[in-house]
Amino acid sequence: MPDDTTAPRRRHTRRTTGGIPQPPWRRLINPYRPLEILSADQVETIHHASLTILRDIGVEVLGGRALDLCTAAGARVERAGGARGVGGRVRLDPAQVDVLVALAPSRFELHARNPERNLVFGERHLVFGAVGGPAFVTDLDRGRRAGTAADFDAFVRVIGSLDIIHQEGGGPLEPMDLPVVTRHLDMYRTLATLLDKTWQCLGSGRTVVDDALEMVCLTRGVGREELLARPSLMTIINSNSPLRLDGPMSDGLIEMATFGQPVVVTPFTLAGAMTPATLAGALAQQNAEALFMIALAQIARPGAPVVYGGFTSNVDMRTGSPAFGTPEYVKAAIATGQLARRCGLPHRSSNVTGAAVVDAQAAYESQMSIWGSVMAGASLLYQGAGWLEGGLTASFEKLILDAEMLAQMAEVLTPFPVDDDALGLSSIAEVGPGGHFFGTAHTLERYETAFYQPMLSDWRPFETWQEDGARTATERANRIWKQLLAEYEPPPLASGVGEALDAFVARRKREIEANPG
Amino acid sequence: MPDDTTAPRRRHTRRTTGGIPQPPWRRLINPYRPLEILSADQVETIHHASLTILRDIGVEVLGGRALDLCTAAGARVERAGGARGVGGRVRLDPAQVDVLVALAPSRFELHARNPERNLVFGERHLVFGAVGGPAFVTDLDRGRRAGTAADFDAFVRVIGSLDIIHQEGGGPLEPMDLPVVTRHLDMYRTLATLLDKTWQCLGSGRTVVDDALEMVCLTRGVGREELLARPSLMTIINSNSPLRLDGPMSDGLIEMATFGQPVVVTPFTLAGAMTPATLAGALAQQNAEALFMIALAQIARPGAPVVYGGFTSNVDMRTGSPAFGTPEYVKAAIATGQLARRCGLPHRSSNVTGAAVVDAQAAYESQMSIWGSVMAGASLLYQGAGWLEGGLTASFEKLILDAEMLAQMAEVLTPFPVDDDALGLSSIAEVGPGGHFFGTAHTLERYETAFYQPMLSDWRPFETWQEDGARTATERANRIWKQLLAEYEPPPLASGVGEALDAFVARRKREIEANPG
Repeated sequence: MPDDTTAPRRRHTRRTTGGIPQPPWRRLINPYRPLEILSADQVETIHHASLTILRDIGVEVLGGRALDLCTAAGARVERAGGARGVGGRVRLDPAQVDVLVALAPSRFELHARNPERNLVFGERHLVFGAVGGPAFVTDLDRGRRAGTAADFDAFVRVIGSLDIIHQEGGGPLEPMDLPVVTRHLDMYRTLATLLDKTWQCLGSGRTVVDDALEMVCLTRGVGREELLARPSLMTIINSNSPLRLDGPMSDGLIEMATFGQPVVVTPFTLAGAMTPATLAGALAQQNAEALFMIALAQIARPGAPVVYGGFTSNVDMRTGSPAFGTPEYVKAAIATGQLARRCGLPHRSSNVTGAAVVDAQAAYESQMSIWGSVMAGASLLYQGAGWLEGGLTASFEKLILDAEMLAQMAEVLTPFPVDDDALGLSSIAEVGPGGHFFGTAHTLERYETAFYQPMLSDWRPFETWQEDGARTATERANRIWKQLLAEYEPPPLASGVGEALDAFVARRKREIEANPG
Repeated sequence: MPDDTTAPRRRHTRRTTGGIPQPPWRRLINPYRPLEILSADQVETIHHASLTILRDIGVEVLGGRALDLCTAAGARVERAGGARGVGGRVRLDPAQVDVLVALAPSRFELHARNPERNLVFGERHLVFGAVGGPAFVTDLDRGRRAGTAADFDAFVRVIGSLDIIHQEGGGPLEPMDLPVVTRHLDMYRTLATLLDKTWQCLGSGRTVVDDALEMVCLTRGVGREELLARPSLMTIINSNSPLRLDGPMSDGLIEMATFGQPVVVTPFTLAGAMTPATLAGALAQQNAEALFMIALAQIARPGAPVVYGGFTSNVDMRTGSPAFGTPEYVKAAIATGQLARRCGLPHRSSNVTGAAVVDAQAAYESQMSIWGSVMAGASLLYQGAGWLEGGLTASFEKLILDAEMLAQMAEVLTPFPVDDDALGLSSIAEVGPGGHFFGTAHTLERYETAFYQPMLSDWRPFETWQEDGARTATERANRIWKQLLAEYEPPPLASGVGEALDAFVARRKREIEANPG
């Protein structure tokens, strides 16, 4: 496995065939002490408010399997529609929540089909994930449109070519031209064959999880026991704030946890709409919903790996529009880090923006949320690359813009050597006052790898830039993704895996089409 | 004086006449513990390397007054051209440097003509300064061009209208249509009359400093003694790296320090060109040059206020172009904070970008440097708003973009209340699972001021945004600065001050034109 960034190191820039410079794949360690916006007392106040919410108000669960498990575990379950009803209110005692949450590991490893792409979640590790979930796709050539299987394929290839992206995000866009009931199978096959990094599955129901489990086993050539020992699959489980967990999500959560695969439990809490219009209230409610889902995972399988997900932002109180990459988002991310560390758990944050196009707003909001999340000590930066327009759209140009910002952040997290060789006092003496360092031996030794080399930034003089077409960063990003796409060569599958995946997908499609539920 | 952000507070958004929302003027306290990229040992290693540079190599000084002062203070001075030569090498012993640097205050206040605009430098205070120095100016309507007095006037008015900008930066652009020898007088008159916040003067020589001192005294209605007791004027003093201080800069530094006005001593150290191609080497040299200028200020007047300035970035090793807002820039800013705190001094960082236009690159590089600088614990974020194209150009649209990013950062630095009222558990109980919070009493009480309200971000749905003209953030910034400019009303001067400034400028122009030196 490649070295982590635990020690100062020289950068080894590589270039792809087409001359687009990229830093090499590496896992990241965040060397900075996480920011704190809450006092220790305030962390306790919010945590206890969350426990009070779970004890007195509870969570509405729309899933019979979850209700059965909660009942068996001794929770107070008020079933609507009698003992066999699939909906009901679940209340948990504070002590029980704390005991269950303490069962979750503080760190776990996720295994890719290429072991060099394995990831660690927790402690000071930092994972950058790609966009997941948008219905639309956009690029400068064709504009904004509903996603298709062809767009899905192309987007995944560019994700594969960008080494700064550690993990795929569960489908970067929705291939709307594929039948809904079997769409997940086509998506998974594309992800499993085009990428050797980990990818996320869908979390909305038992079927989409089970099919993913099977396909990951086929891809890695392992069985369920090995998958349990060395998890490979991850998904996002969202609550429907306020305080509701729907049937498919509860089933997906339970299925993942039962088979030992990590879930990223994420309340989507927009302050002012789904929570009180205060950060304290939003965080108390976010924390209550997260703790509930973590507890449910532990009920399903004690010790199941989880990531504490935070996604608290606010609405624009003038219009009701959701706002992303805002100061409130950053403060909530910092507080979320503190609440997650209070539970000893890895935590998820995101790279978000509400901008309609890839302009300066998209850049400053994304950079706000990247910095806020990393400074918060996030373990997983989900939606890390390609997210636009509040998550409605996956953008090819934004994918490149974000990859550039992530690669720069990775470099910010890399300490630099301070020793006699690096200080170069003899070189300073040699040049003396008023000279320059371009030709010194000290400089020439470091010429190629001294500094981070961007793929997107253009630092040429104005006149040179203008004569060369006066392209904005977004226009340059357009050229870059097309070049990466054209040159991408999927990492080869082991012998027979492609055929096994095809056979599985064909069989499952026949089964689903024969019995569409 | 307005409250500092020492405690959680509600935001009171005000609107200007034209409906452009701005947070009100306030001084900022950075509540976060500064990042550290160097170990304590590494800080000492760099500090001692800097002392070694000053002892063994020394600094070339091209100013007779500085050489005389250094000689009198017991420094080792090797004068070129004999005892009366105006150039020479100055070497300082480590103990002497440490003793001199320790004389500088760790905190000082700067007094504006409007006492509500007074500023504090040092401790956890954070000041946002505007762009200073570009030769060119640009906007979307007229493009990039040489600066004029009319542009200068307009730019200063927009700076005046933006309450997030605490301080003007010494002339946002060069009014090239005014005669060089008297240009500073016209610039100062514009700054003194259009702004009630502090502004910076030029630092390149005794004349430009003395004229500024006189005009500040006239504006505040005070004499030199009062100015000494309550400083009002600030300037940037740059060394010419490597290890050279020119005549005008050394004269300006001495004149400022002699009259007790703070200087921001700033080596402009581009690693790979003016320093070794390593951050350790660049920082050792930056620190040596900064310590030298701080020591010189203390020789001129023990206890003179100074700000430790860092401006270490790197060149693109492929082209030699300077690079700004890079990961190296951020790491150097963080290390600079540590080196400045080692000396117990306030420190300066900057908001920089190498982008040619106000595009996504300009936004991500500026946001990188804003976050890096604030996380480094900077006391002054100079070039905070309006800087483009490596400092060659002042941009009206960038001014608005930066003001938005700074206002958002100010909000990130503002803690939020965590108490029963803010938690709103009864509101969460009232709404219950599956409801929404739009109409609750808890929300309605907070409707107007719950969240930060941006002036530039557009969060409307894509279709609405498109139907309303599909304007990018940069195009929206164009409309905003024009509206702010049209509506700006300069804060009135005290009776007779305008006439006194006019008379001073007229007299000095006659003197300079009669004896252009």
